[in-house]
This record gives sequence, C-alpha cells and structure tokens, in this order.
Amino acid sequence: MILRPGKVIVPSAVIRRLPMYYRYLRAMTEKGVERISSKALSEEMNITSSQLRQDLSYFGEFGQQGYGYKVPELYRVMCDILGIEKQYGTVLVGVGNLGRAIINYDGFSKRGLEVMAVFDNKPLLYGEVVCGMPIKPVSQLYEFLCNNMVDIGIIATPAKSAQDIAEVLIKGGVKGIWNFAPQPVLGNEHVVVENTHFGDGLLKLFYGMKHN
Amino acid sequence: MILRPGKVIVPSAVIRRLPMYYRYLRAMTEKGVERISSKALSEEMNITSSQLRQDLSYFGEFGQQGYGYKVPELYRVMCDILGIEKQYGTVLVGVGNLGRAIINYDGFSKRGLEVMAVFDNKPLLYGEVVCGMPIKPVSQLYEFLCNNMVDIGIIATPAKSAQDIAEVLIKGGVKGIWNFAPQPVLGNEHVVVENTHFGDGLLKLFYGMKHN
Repeated sequence: MILRPGKVIVPSAVIRRLPMYYRYLRAMTEKGVERISSKALSEEMNITSSQLRQDLSYFGEFGQQGYGYKVPELYRVMCDILGIEKQYGTVLVGVGNLGRAIINYDGFSKRGLEVMAVFDNKPLLYGEVVCGMPIKPVSQLYEFLCNNMVDIGIIATPAKSAQDIAEVLIKGGVKGIWNFAPQPVLGNEHVVVENTHFGDGLLKLFYGMKHN
Repeated sequence: MILRPGKVIVPSAVIRRLPMYYRYLRAMTEKGVERISSKALSEEMNITSSQLRQDLSYFGEFGQQGYGYKVPELYRVMCDILGIEKQYGTVLVGVGNLGRAIINYDGFSKRGLEVMAVFDNKPLLYGEVVCGMPIKPVSQLYEFLCNNMVDIGIIATPAKSAQDIAEVLIKGGVKGIWNFAPQPVLGNEHVVVENTHFGDGLLKLFYGMKHN
C-alpha cells in the first residue's frame, strides 16, 4: 500500500462514495473477512470494479493483482482518509425529535462523536436530561464554546434559526457544522459545512416508484 | 418545452441531483421568481451550467437561448419528473425519536406523504397518539396493509428487524420502502427501496474537516 503524497484534488462524486466504502469495509472487518477481490467488493456495493479501483487510486495504491484487498488494512486506510481515527467534541443545538434521534443514533459515538452539551431555546426543556446531559439555553452556547474545545456543531433547529446558530458556532471556533435544518447554512474558509437534506431520499424514492 | 417520449436510461448521478433541483426551484417559485438564466441557476446550486443543461436534457428541452428558464414551469416539470403531483398513503414502522422526527418533519406532507398508521413493537407505546394516530402493534401491520391502499412503508426500526419488516411491507403490497435502519434492506422488481444512510453526512463532514 502506497499512500499518495501531497495534495490531490478528489472529485466530489468520489468523496460522496467514501462513506459507502467505509460502511462495507467496517461490516466485513467486523465479520472477520480478511481479503476480498475488487470484483467481489464492487459487486457487494453495486458499482463496477473499475470505478472502485479508480476511486481508491486518488488515495494511494491498494490491493494486489490476483490477491485483492486486505480488508482490515483497507478499512483502517478508509478510517484515516475520512478522519475517523480521532474524537470530535460536539454540541447539538435543537433538541426536538430530530436532535434526539441524532444524538441517540447507533454508531455515532463509535465514529468518534463525543456530545459535550445540548442546547435548545424552549424554556420548558431547560434542565431536562438527554443522553446524560441537561439541556442548556441557546443563550449559553457562545460562552460554552469559548470555554471548551468543541470541534463540531450539529444544528437540528427549524429553518429560520439555522444561519444565526451557524454564526454563533463559527464565532465560537468550531471547525465543522453538520446542519439538518431544511435551510442550507454557510460556513467560511475555516469552517466546513455539511448540509444534510433529510428529505432527498423521499424524492429519490418517489422517482424510483414513478419510473420503475 | 418538449418532454422526451419513451424510455431513456437516466444515470443515477443525475437522479441524485433531482432533489436539489426540486428544492431550489421550489424556493424560487415561492419567492415569486419568474425566470432565471442557466448560469444564475447553476451558480445558485454550485454546479456548472453545462452540467445543469446536460442533466435536464434527459427529460426534455427546457429553457430558451437568451431567455433562460421559466421558473414556475420548470418547477412543475420537476414535480412531475419526481412524481410529487400525487398523494402517497404511508405507514411508519418504528416510533422512536427517528420515526417521530420523520413524521413530524416539515415539508413531507407538502410532498404528498399521507401517514395513515404508525406501528411499533413496544407494548408500552401501544395506543400513544402520535400525529393524531394511536401507535399500533407491529403484529397488526400485515392486516392493515391488506385492508388499506398503502403506497409507501417507512422503516425506522433497529437494524436487526429491518429486513423482516421490509418483507411484511412487500407481502402487504407497498410499492416503495424508505429505510432508515442502519442495515440496508432489499426490495424486489415491483418494490423500490431507498436506503437512507443518515450518518453518511457525518463522514463527509469529517473528510471535509480533515482535508480543508
């Protein structure tokens, strides 16, 4: 395995497939699979083996002619590419059903998400304990960010508050924002934003049903 | 505007972008925007105008040299392509935080999702009213499907029950399954499945933070 030195521009379509590679390699590693051919791995993921090889080629040289891939090694490499090797201090803003679903979702803590505090702007919720933490008022968010090392802010608020919250998170020094509000938010050159459009899957399903 | 006759194979990367087109066109229509150039529309969505034109070309001929696109018309076309014009009778299985977040999410009813019943397998939840409906035992799911016209089943259960639920939904005659369990489920030639991997956005965020 040779990792590519220096900066390579990786197309966004390739980046989009990395989580899928991670999921499959993780599942295989957990099942104890030691090696797999690029044909078998790509069939498992419903892509062509040439696409798999091309995608991985952005990150280094993996696998061997006639042998295939060493699964645990490729899994570790994928964790490294994605930056899963570390812990990310995280705050959640918006503790409705979606916020609760996010912090309770199986697997996020395994991926290194360490939720440090949860915030909401509904006084009725203040002090309620969620995942072992009392819900704090959003008015305390900035102070919390100043006094703690927080890497990621998760926004699960209604659309209208999302950009305001994003700006507090940015001013407070987070490095990444994961936004679930139905309104995309903007980061800046130092703060990466991932806008997750929860409902896009439904539209893809409608499309599939109509054109099946 | 000329809609393409007959069947055209649309690449999955194009289908994946359709929900984004829908979201932007919907927002512009709501703001009362009447026309937009392909340059302005594509910049808004952070893609190239040639990609926009190429994607739309799978579905017909839209827009006019020097005029651009008629926004309300293109929005209606996008609704039609995605099959948003109709109502979809829906059941939800799994009424935890994620299930509740899904049925309460702003916008799904506007997209035609009509939740007819909600199911869970925890006796403590039976009868609790969610969105105006009492939670029913999963053991009644198949009978409900036989007695009602249900188009879509949403699965928001833990991984281990997901495929079993999918099989009941398929046997009960749904046409589409939207699966949120962390385990992908399989449909068949008559039943379209959309597996939504809730956590993929987090991995993309990690990647962005590491390589920013």
